[in-house]
Amino acid sequence: MTRAHRHIDDDIDAVRSLVLKMSGYVEASVESAVQALNEKNSSKFELVFEYEKKINECQIEVDQLCLHILGTQNPLAKDLRLILAIIKINTDLERMGDQAKNIAHHGKSYLEHSSQLALTPDLKHMAGIAREMIRDAMIAFTKRNEELAKEVLLKDDSVDELKRKINKSMIEIMKSKPGAVEGAIAQMSISRNIERLADHATNICEDVVFLRTGEDIRHSHQG
Amino acid sequence: MTRAHRHIDDDIDAVRSLVLKMSGYVEASVESAVQALNEKNSSKFELVFEYEKKINECQIEVDQLCLHILGTQNPLAKDLRLILAIIKINTDLERMGDQAKNIAHHGKSYLEHSSQLALTPDLKHMAGIAREMIRDAMIAFTKRNEELAKEVLLKDDSVDELKRKINKSMIEIMKSKPGAVEGAIAQMSISRNIERLADHATNICEDVVFLRTGEDIRHSHQG
Repeated sequence: MTRAHRHIDDDIDAVRSLVLKMSGYVEASVESAVQALNEKNSSKFELVFEYEKKINECQIEVDQLCLHILGTQNPLAKDLRLILAIIKINTDLERMGDQAKNIAHHGKSYLEHSSQLALTPDLKHMAGIAREMIRDAMIAFTKRNEELAKEVLLKDDSVDELKRKINKSMIEIMKSKPGAVEGAIAQMSISRNIERLADHATNICEDVVFLRTGEDIRHSHQG
Repeated sequence: MTRAHRHIDDDIDAVRSLVLKMSGYVEASVESAVQALNEKNSSKFELVFEYEKKINECQIEVDQLCLHILGTQNPLAKDLRLILAIIKINTDLERMGDQAKNIAHHGKSYLEHSSQLALTPDLKHMAGIAREMIRDAMIAFTKRNEELAKEVLLKDDSVDELKRKINKSMIEIMKSKPGAVEGAIAQMSISRNIERLADHATNICEDVVFLRTGEDIRHSHQG
């Protein structure tokens, strides 16, 4: 061993592992929600509710571990920044679980009215980009890859653009086809939830940049 | 003086003051957004965008102060819990600024279409409750008043109920009156933003309970 083994490293490894486990649940939850929609298989939404419970349990455990590390190990500099980043990423992951749950609720409502109005391909496209963003945000966190984090930030614009496009087309549909109102509202709601999933992925990437550089880029990389 | 003056107390006072200033901006921002809607005065929405910039500046400053305190003062027990609560409250306040901004965007859209559809009184009612919740959450934080925090948590149900009521009535309106679609969508969006403001107020109250008791009540007080 070239340097002394530090107790704090074990604690940090433990909390990092838990965050990765939590992000795995988030990814699986979003995947289940999107599959349920694509396959018109309402029972698959139940998985989302199961994952959300696990995510909430992880959230509480991550916060307890961070509090423990801060209270007993006196982390400094790089370690302290990592703990603060994890506290924030934890909040984002928990809210992503909520967003997946919202997709499941609106998705169930959509499937009840899907005979009125087909699922727009833009929604699948948007969900695909958001899922890539979530996956890459967590890879960027794990590998401390600032470049990858910045690539994810750039993808957020196309998600926002797709949301605007979906909103516009759903409003036109509702005006011309009153029977399609519920199906259109559900799709608008799902697109909003996907947009928020992507926003949380960008929050995580901002934390990764902060972790690498100590620079706070929130409110600066967007217009 | 009955006890030694601690340097950490000055730092904690500074960050607490900054959080209170930030919450003042949030309250003023929400007030401006609601007034602009009630008075059909679109120019008042501009205030909301100004407040949002100030809120974002505060957010970065609060995080820097917390990082400084954690890195230099080694806070323990009660102090450490307070710093962690402030880090979370900071995130909530920043998102509340975003929600007020969203209300301003949707409010502008509503005012462009207000001749189609009057503002539902339920929206004003909902906004009134949410504003009380925000104010009381910050009083509960300042005074470490756990009872008040728990009262705020109970009010969230009536906000959710009003949102459901508004959604239902707007869907009925859109089905029977296609010309009112934009006005109805805007009101649904505003009610969703108000609901999220209330959610952030409940997050702050959960942090207040944690601060007082060390007990994490997230995911337990709701069904």
